[in-house]
Amino acid sequence: MTETAPILVNGEWRGAEASDVFHTIDPATGEALTPAYPVSRWSDLDAALDAAASAYRAMRGMGGEAFARFIASYASLIEADADGLTAIAHRETALDAAPRLRDVELPRTLQQLRLAAEAARDGGWALPTIDTEHDIRSCLGPIGPVCVFGPNNFPFAYGCVSGGDFAAAIAAGNPVIGKAHPAHAGVDRRFAELARQAAEDAGLPPGAVQLLYHMGAEDGLKMVADPRNAAIGFTGGKPAGLAIKRAAEDAGKLAYLEMSSVNPVVILPGALAERSAAIADALLDNLLMGTGQFCTCPGLVFLAAGEPTEAFLAAVAERLSNAPAGTLLTPGLVDNLTRAVGLWVGAGADLLTGGKPIPGGRCAFENTAARVSGDRFLDDPQTFQTEAFGNASLYVVCRDVEQIAAAVRRLEGNLTGSIWSRGDGSEDEAYRLIEPDLRQHVGRMLNDRMTNGVTVTGAMNHGGPYPATGHGGFTAVGVPASLRRFAMLRCYDHVRHDRLPPLLQDPNPTGRTWRMIDEAWTQADVGSPTLRG
Amino acid sequence: MTETAPILVNGEWRGAEASDVFHTIDPATGEALTPAYPVSRWSDLDAALDAAASAYRAMRGMGGEAFARFIASYASLIEADADGLTAIAHRETALDAAPRLRDVELPRTLQQLRLAAEAARDGGWALPTIDTEHDIRSCLGPIGPVCVFGPNNFPFAYGCVSGGDFAAAIAAGNPVIGKAHPAHAGVDRRFAELARQAAEDAGLPPGAVQLLYHMGAEDGLKMVADPRNAAIGFTGGKPAGLAIKRAAEDAGKLAYLEMSSVNPVVILPGALAERSAAIADALLDNLLMGTGQFCTCPGLVFLAAGEPTEAFLAAVAERLSNAPAGTLLTPGLVDNLTRAVGLWVGAGADLLTGGKPIPGGRCAFENTAARVSGDRFLDDPQTFQTEAFGNASLYVVCRDVEQIAAAVRRLEGNLTGSIWSRGDGSEDEAYRLIEPDLRQHVGRMLNDRMTNGVTVTGAMNHGGPYPATGHGGFTAVGVPASLRRFAMLRCYDHVRHDRLPPLLQDPNPTGRTWRMIDEAWTQADVGSPTLRG
Repeated sequence: MTETAPILVNGEWRGAEASDVFHTIDPATGEALTPAYPVSRWSDLDAALDAAASAYRAMRGMGGEAFARFIASYASLIEADADGLTAIAHRETALDAAPRLRDVELPRTLQQLRLAAEAARDGGWALPTIDTEHDIRSCLGPIGPVCVFGPNNFPFAYGCVSGGDFAAAIAAGNPVIGKAHPAHAGVDRRFAELARQAAEDAGLPPGAVQLLYHMGAEDGLKMVADPRNAAIGFTGGKPAGLAIKRAAEDAGKLAYLEMSSVNPVVILPGALAERSAAIADALLDNLLMGTGQFCTCPGLVFLAAGEPTEAFLAAVAERLSNAPAGTLLTPGLVDNLTRAVGLWVGAGADLLTGGKPIPGGRCAFENTAARVSGDRFLDDPQTFQTEAFGNASLYVVCRDVEQIAAAVRRLEGNLTGSIWSRGDGSEDEAYRLIEPDLRQHVGRMLNDRMTNGVTVTGAMNHGGPYPATGHGGFTAVGVPASLRRFAMLRCYDHVRHDRLPPLLQDPNPTGRTWRMIDEAWTQADVGSPTLRG
Repeated sequence: MTETAPILVNGEWRGAEASDVFHTIDPATGEALTPAYPVSRWSDLDAALDAAASAYRAMRGMGGEAFARFIASYASLIEADADGLTAIAHRETALDAAPRLRDVELPRTLQQLRLAAEAARDGGWALPTIDTEHDIRSCLGPIGPVCVFGPNNFPFAYGCVSGGDFAAAIAAGNPVIGKAHPAHAGVDRRFAELARQAAEDAGLPPGAVQLLYHMGAEDGLKMVADPRNAAIGFTGGKPAGLAIKRAAEDAGKLAYLEMSSVNPVVILPGALAERSAAIADALLDNLLMGTGQFCTCPGLVFLAAGEPTEAFLAAVAERLSNAPAGTLLTPGLVDNLTRAVGLWVGAGADLLTGGKPIPGGRCAFENTAARVSGDRFLDDPQTFQTEAFGNASLYVVCRDVEQIAAAVRRLEGNLTGSIWSRGDGSEDEAYRLIEPDLRQHVGRMLNDRMTNGVTVTGAMNHGGPYPATGHGGFTAVGVPASLRRFAMLRCYDHVRHDRLPPLLQDPNPTGRTWRMIDEAWTQADVGSPTLRG
């Protein structure tokens, strides 16, 4: 009998009360890895919820400095274990150990954590707002325990106890119950070991960071809706996301979900005439990066009919068919791609290259491109927006720019979208025709570049209209805005000064925290002569 | 046959396709008023949704200045018609014509509109954020048509085409479909007449402001979930609110709902010993103001057992029974109060005074107070938090401060909560015992004052945890934050400078709009030497 990994509940690594076990899979070979991981029964979830609720009671009395200390020390432990984490992640995901995992994703993960730590220390993320005339003061504050469901594709940067949702939730002062992704449970486990140690060192309560690996769907939804839970951070597929959204929202919980995106790209004729090769290079880069398994991978490309488009598609198809097909993260993704491409073809798309799983133990699918006319797209826009998560893309060849605009009008919500146009501004009219409808359906709009890549900056929006996410007003990446998801607005009306949180007392809590005092943003103290007015 | 009022769809006042009609009622007499108002069939809603979608396409190309001009000119028309609006509202609601309607609620309504107009002109509400190093820029922007459902209790300040949700939605650039409250459809109609005129003068498209009076529940939910609708602003009762929330969220729409609040007040023994009479005065004022029909009316009071509490309750009950019982807004509220007080008594509360409807045509219920022990409250906290919207309040007499803390721990989400304590700080320990749990369950915390009254300031939170509202991160009152509800986050990543919205271009769009540029709030232009760093 193989070892079954323990779960982390209330600060203790202990055996789960398991209804079943599962194994992670090496996608490069299809082999099951050891140890086994438990599928928890409700009693495990119940214990984690109790511990989280109790942790929250303790954390409410702590300042942002404690959370900052924890996160910073956790980041250092991760950095020190970079090789170990990379080895586990590589084995479980087949993502390149370097540069991808160790030199790109891990540094980004550390950056997110360290920015979150700074934000927790600074407090300005909470938009402190003070009206001195009426003595009314408000800021965002923690909301309560947050359940974080991580996705398959970024084992570090979106990990349930290491990624952006985790960092945002705990920096805002909330305990986290992490639900591992079954494809890389070993990475999540290693992160949780480091987080537990850092939490203990920083004096956080034992329920501040917990880890479960898996559970029955019904129990998962019950946890999400439980009175002890306050909010959800979810990144993953649409069916699970929608089920969680409904369970959470019916119970009055806040659900932040990133669920799907085909990331439409419009290539206007002038851009193609001007720099077809450069656009193809950028597209190929984006399509093959991580075997297309990025949330912002450009999966749906709009072009105007004509010889240059034919040449462009021929070049793209040829280069895709010559490029090695990468390894997908899980066997399930091979099935998904097969189904999605089948839907496109069934609805009238023609394959340009690829279209089939690659036999053998490895999780792989041929690099795939398909095309469909604008007329056909407009007949069934929903089917042609079926997300094919992985190395497959669909090209919509429209009659003209007007038909591209009509097609864009039928888009669902996406994380990103891009318009390529001639550099001299001569296609600005076409841009103005298309942009408003594309803008309405994407969280982030790009010009003259492909959609992949998410810069961690305060100006980023990694979010978008439904069904890309559950709430288009928020971003999952970018500090400080991502913290604001896991928060409630707290107003203090004539509360005695010494009872106010430090963030809202007269002196600036750090000497440099931005606060809005009497309608002006300032780093000054309340009552300081440097204040405006 | 009496006249049936027309609906406002796509800029035209036209006859509804009605399945039925209804009349508003004069609550002072119970008499039905004329004209009749139509219950619209789906075809009316469908037409309004079409017009709203078309209006939104036009409004996307307009700047905040156009919305500001509309709102400001609308406010002037309202001001000029103050007497007319007051007369209609008084007849439909029996609220005092003056000071309440004309001298308090109308000026507040104008203030909200004018602040929203300023916010639309300024643009800073959208939290413009610019990262010059990466050329990534983002801000909030309009989301699309918003359906606003107004409540019964503030015919001006929360009216579906005059109140805070309306002002916020349209200032953010969204068309509004107003759903009148059947208790004061005549006021809503008059507002819509003025809004239509102002919209035409300001060059807004005809579907920018529309008005329907009523519809079947199924059609209403269908409208909320329709692809042409983007978000909902709702203020009203919990059953309707929850149905709308579910329909909206299942379809991926954002639902901002204010549904219920009992506004818990804790009176610590030292405060009672120090200033029992002043506290009773404040409480009576709050309970009788608007016949208790304020969202923030203190309906649930926690006290510690003892002689001073007995004396306090006796005084409150006596003054309540001697005070004239005000007129309620609708016959339905009399039934609601009867049911709510019945639930309290059925679960073990004892009436101190009142408890029955007042016979006759007037909509009225005896001023009512009931008491229950802390033990009993803890046995059935849900029943004793049944909202009795109107002039009824419940007093929970706990064994001691520890039991008050235990009771507060069982509270549901509320808009406001207050703790009264002795002025010299000698009850700070009790405060610290109770405050964290009360804080968690209220949007706005007060000290040493009752909960009624909402100041329109940027620091206000008129919101709170579920089920007081649908999302505890947002406020329905206060500019600029209330605008952020009806918005989506829009990021521009390497978008050519002349294609950016003016708010995100290098020059400050107004010369004084606050923007976060490279992590510092500033009113400067991008690239200005006065920028930090």
